[in-house]
Amino acid sequence: MKNEYTIGIDIGGTGTVLGAVSAAGEVVAEAHFPTRDYPHFDDYPAYVTRLAEAIGILQAQLPAGAILRGVGIGAPDTDGRHGVIDRPVNLWKFRPDEANPDEERRIFPLVCDLQRLLSDRPPLRIANDANAAAWGEHIYGAARDMRDFVVVTLGTGLGSGFVANGALIEGSDGMAGELGHVIVEPGGRLCGCGRRGCLETYVSATGLCRTVIELLENGSEPSTLQSIPRKRLEAHTVAEAAAAGDALALEAMRRTGERLGLALANVVSITSPEAVILFGGLVRAGELLFGPTRRALEENLSPIRRGRVPLLPSALLDRNAGVLGAAALIG
Amino acid sequence: MKNEYTIGIDIGGTGTVLGAVSAAGEVVAEAHFPTRDYPHFDDYPAYVTRLAEAIGILQAQLPAGAILRGVGIGAPDTDGRHGVIDRPVNLWKFRPDEANPDEERRIFPLVCDLQRLLSDRPPLRIANDANAAAWGEHIYGAARDMRDFVVVTLGTGLGSGFVANGALIEGSDGMAGELGHVIVEPGGRLCGCGRRGCLETYVSATGLCRTVIELLENGSEPSTLQSIPRKRLEAHTVAEAAAAGDALALEAMRRTGERLGLALANVVSITSPEAVILFGGLVRAGELLFGPTRRALEENLSPIRRGRVPLLPSALLDRNAGVLGAAALIG
Repeated sequence: MKNEYTIGIDIGGTGTVLGAVSAAGEVVAEAHFPTRDYPHFDDYPAYVTRLAEAIGILQAQLPAGAILRGVGIGAPDTDGRHGVIDRPVNLWKFRPDEANPDEERRIFPLVCDLQRLLSDRPPLRIANDANAAAWGEHIYGAARDMRDFVVVTLGTGLGSGFVANGALIEGSDGMAGELGHVIVEPGGRLCGCGRRGCLETYVSATGLCRTVIELLENGSEPSTLQSIPRKRLEAHTVAEAAAAGDALALEAMRRTGERLGLALANVVSITSPEAVILFGGLVRAGELLFGPTRRALEENLSPIRRGRVPLLPSALLDRNAGVLGAAALIG
Repeated sequence: MKNEYTIGIDIGGTGTVLGAVSAAGEVVAEAHFPTRDYPHFDDYPAYVTRLAEAIGILQAQLPAGAILRGVGIGAPDTDGRHGVIDRPVNLWKFRPDEANPDEERRIFPLVCDLQRLLSDRPPLRIANDANAAAWGEHIYGAARDMRDFVVVTLGTGLGSGFVANGALIEGSDGMAGELGHVIVEPGGRLCGCGRRGCLETYVSATGLCRTVIELLENGSEPSTLQSIPRKRLEAHTVAEAAAAGDALALEAMRRTGERLGLALANVVSITSPEAVILFGGLVRAGELLFGPTRRALEENLSPIRRGRVPLLPSALLDRNAGVLGAAALIG
């Protein structure tokens, strides 16, 4: 137990972060490298080789006699059940395999490919990044004693992970937990997924900025955000303006919270979690976001559930949540 | 195995049906009695006594040497985790227990109370009726080989049961699976739960009739349904009119299917089921309901999931689904 370690790998569109996590949940060694430009941009086989090397380098840093319990990986667009990354939006484009038809070549069997390169064959598990984040909250964070909860990650997009009966809901295709792609406004804002009105087009860092731009364009209210070029607008700037009392920024936060609160009330009707945990950059806005979200959640909850579903901030906000979530996958 | 039986009990607002179910899934003996008027309307202790007697009578009908594996109960407004019926809308009003405050007196600990009256103390399990229906579909019906699926029951209201990782999602309060109370139209139709815009106010037998009445009142389209007194309008009459080509009835079916299809697409984003199974009276409308529902489901699904989530009718429509679902709870 004392000398056991898990390696957690957080694959993002820009960088890949690896960490060796002790049984006590401490990241004792870390490594990182760019996800897509090593050695050639978009070269998946080279990426897998580089990843295996990084695992080896990390293992070499562990104390003598250290036992590797397994390697957990969190990545976007991942089908955890089948161990593949399925048509990723921000990762590689194609596997160089002429024999397969195009659609197949956009599915990356990372667990299988990586397993071949690791001589000590540790247990490997991969999950969607938001699902890994939820599981990390269960093992190391705010959901430690919970068997039924939801984690919502408010970053560039909106990710989510659902745990029911003490197990991650991965669904039949391994890709469950896409709360960000629940359609909340038919015919609404265009989403990166090709549909319109998905929750993440309203509730995310990007969604918040879109709301601000709409308010700036439609409204007559003066705002300190008026002077910022639209393309440079960032969620933290909006949150800062709201904290300083800017009425337009406050209205944008309120609308974001209202959409999120209603969506969460609907989630509660379906899975009845013990708590909803919010994670990601937007969470740093604190009560500016939690206030309107909690109000809308309570208003839209079934009467018998009011006051019973706490909205909590993640306990991993200032820790290496991606690595911990990935490591947590190794039970 | 051959001589083992389970008793399934389906508690409804009007009647209670009991059935002894063989290992092969056959209902070999049945009994029923009114839920609320025995011996006095709304007398919960008398109900429990009557229920225990009915179980005894049913057991007496089983072959000599029969082994009772357990008693499963499906009931509305049930918290399966804690074995209680929680503030039921259509069952008893109060437990006669002066010592407790009012709210507590509306929670009925049926498992506990029934257990005391059964001398052979069989395993007892209770679940929300829609959750029991879903589990029945898993053990005896259309979801036999599935680990992740959703069952939606379209009756007077809209019930639902979710199974993920091969287990019922009951949630922290034992009452998960309330898809009927997802708010799909903020400020919309008033629901029996006190909120507005719940899915079941649009998608259910009652919801379909409300849509027809709206169309009759707002529209100028002639319809054979015009001559039926509003209060006598029933869902099967609407379905028959639609089958006969009545344009207004067809429009009402289309709107119902559209709402349901969008809600199901959102469910798929969250739990990624292998299939969605529809149960209840409205399902008999066949393609008149399935057609528009399937179209809306497909349109609103994430592109990578299109064509992959079958919409199936229940395999228990012509069988005693309530009793089988309840019996299925005994694993």
